[in-house]
Amino acid sequence: MADAQTRFGIIGCADIARKVSRAILLSPSSTLAAVASRSLEKAKAFAAENGLPDSVRVYGSYEQLLDDPCVDAVYMPLPTGLHLHWAVAAARKKKHLLLEKPPALDVSELDLILEACESGGVQFMDGSMWLHHPRTAKMKEMISDPHLFGRVNNIYSTSTISRPEDFFEANIRVKPDLDGLGALGDLGWYCIGSILWATGYRLPDTVLALPDVTKNSNGVILSCSASLNWSSDKADTKTAIFHCSFLSHESMDLAVSGSMGSLHVNDYIIPFEESSAVFEFVSGAKFAHLHIGWNKKPDVVEVSSDLPQEALMVEEFSRLVEGIRSSGGRPDGKWPEISRKTQIVMDAVRKSIELGCKPVTLHP
Amino acid sequence: MADAQTRFGIIGCADIARKVSRAILLSPSSTLAAVASRSLEKAKAFAAENGLPDSVRVYGSYEQLLDDPCVDAVYMPLPTGLHLHWAVAAARKKKHLLLEKPPALDVSELDLILEACESGGVQFMDGSMWLHHPRTAKMKEMISDPHLFGRVNNIYSTSTISRPEDFFEANIRVKPDLDGLGALGDLGWYCIGSILWATGYRLPDTVLALPDVTKNSNGVILSCSASLNWSSDKADTKTAIFHCSFLSHESMDLAVSGSMGSLHVNDYIIPFEESSAVFEFVSGAKFAHLHIGWNKKPDVVEVSSDLPQEALMVEEFSRLVEGIRSSGGRPDGKWPEISRKTQIVMDAVRKSIELGCKPVTLHP
Repeated sequence: MADAQTRFGIIGCADIARKVSRAILLSPSSTLAAVASRSLEKAKAFAAENGLPDSVRVYGSYEQLLDDPCVDAVYMPLPTGLHLHWAVAAARKKKHLLLEKPPALDVSELDLILEACESGGVQFMDGSMWLHHPRTAKMKEMISDPHLFGRVNNIYSTSTISRPEDFFEANIRVKPDLDGLGALGDLGWYCIGSILWATGYRLPDTVLALPDVTKNSNGVILSCSASLNWSSDKADTKTAIFHCSFLSHESMDLAVSGSMGSLHVNDYIIPFEESSAVFEFVSGAKFAHLHIGWNKKPDVVEVSSDLPQEALMVEEFSRLVEGIRSSGGRPDGKWPEISRKTQIVMDAVRKSIELGCKPVTLHP
Repeated sequence: MADAQTRFGIIGCADIARKVSRAILLSPSSTLAAVASRSLEKAKAFAAENGLPDSVRVYGSYEQLLDDPCVDAVYMPLPTGLHLHWAVAAARKKKHLLLEKPPALDVSELDLILEACESGGVQFMDGSMWLHHPRTAKMKEMISDPHLFGRVNNIYSTSTISRPEDFFEANIRVKPDLDGLGALGDLGWYCIGSILWATGYRLPDTVLALPDVTKNSNGVILSCSASLNWSSDKADTKTAIFHCSFLSHESMDLAVSGSMGSLHVNDYIIPFEESSAVFEFVSGAKFAHLHIGWNKKPDVVEVSSDLPQEALMVEEFSRLVEGIRSSGGRPDGKWPEISRKTQIVMDAVRKSIELGCKPVTLHP
């Protein structure tokens, strides 16, 4: 396998890079070739703190890493406001691109990144790790079974993290020029992604931000909710609601309600534990005799995982990269499409907020 | 105890009356004195099918039961459209009133009922059984602890039942003249009630129906959602969302999100089992090392119950009735107030739907 390993460079030493550098080292299909920060000292400190092997080259500029011919792919956890510049630069240097979410400030930016990847013939994937957990595939299988679940009618998704007061004005994730999408970009990305995942990536017909928007003094979103509606196909209407917030205790709930079953998971983004994860599923539940109980309780479905989900993400990305490198194949269009649809809905939520919570119609 | 038992009459032999007649017989503080239907045959059949004791008198008209001097209180599971007439008639006959939910078609009707109860000096309570389960009290205790839970920020509540196709046009619960509130009245009542419960019965400032309303050909609601917002107290803003539907698989999820904790329960209206019920609670959860897991999982809190929740409701109602009967006390204002606030919010949701999903401001 060693000769088929994807050689990763990491651009930016954000907290999340610690997790993904570990994942790259855990994944049999990849190796960590280099890390770059804006200064050599920071890059060296990152390598030391994370016990990176001596073989990992450290760079004091992003350009240097992109010029390294022994780097096949870059993982880029930069602030969203810097993605356009550096993602396009990476694609032009023919580096495959694993880009932290949200991939861009809006879909027009994302399209420039995707076009650069297309032109460069490189694979694009955003850093939505939960999509790669085997639990996610198992949940999808069960909600897709028409005999078990019927039709998906309603989806509810949350992503909340309680941040300290000093975060709201000062942290990078709420700086208009760095991560101007605030909680919507950082957390709402997961909510929107999980909703689209549950619908088989059908774009909603309308998106409506709810009136509970909270912003900081710079106008960056700290908390918001939205309602998504699929109404054009009368035989398959759906509705979804999400809530994302820096103001509430940690939560990541996903509830999918079908005509014949329901699914609940309360740790869909980051499983409580690495080695196995559960969800609750029930089909055909009814109230029992005199409505004094239920005929059945939800089953707890457990799915174990040999590797953490971020390493599985790296595995999948590396598999696609090696397919391109070894046989001259084309990049897989599935991952860019997922990112693009998620970004389209995120744009619509933001537009609805800007319009004072008016509905925004999507024309796919 | 026997001489202090509240003697119940049941007016209307709906399905739910089977459950509540059992509860009245189970409750040590009450006894079942009489049942009435619109025909003597139906009343007799109800008594026989449910194995009621021979001591239970059967009446072929509601008036006869209300004229029975040995009936202290009536339980009234009539269609909502008939509540105003019969609830007022019962109160005028000095019968204490346990009225099935929703208690009225709107708050102006409910106020006439409450005024009649007030004039008659009789206790009023609506049939929201889940409020009487000891689990509900335990959940309230835990979300009210500022050190454990912080501030309640966000509430999500569902009540859905999958009904067969032929239900949507023909069933009594979707007949404009009988239960014209449809899913909003039958199921949304619980959602609104649970949200108000979680906020300590603070009325929201605004109510907004979401655009996912589904109606039958008579205009009766089969499915809807709404967003409730508390924004006037800047130091204690809250938001809540509910979804009620006859179109989805059975669900009754309640998720309360605080600044320091979260609570989840997926059977809040009717516990999976009679004898004990659980909820999940966690406080101070954080992502663990490198965000590869959590520092703690939610605790599963189990609360056992000696009597089913509907019998505990009958117990509480009978306790209040006996307080009035034995010592000439006044009716307890807590239960009418809970019903009235729930009805006010339900009216606002309906108004928002009628306005095409425009926000409705409440002026308490």
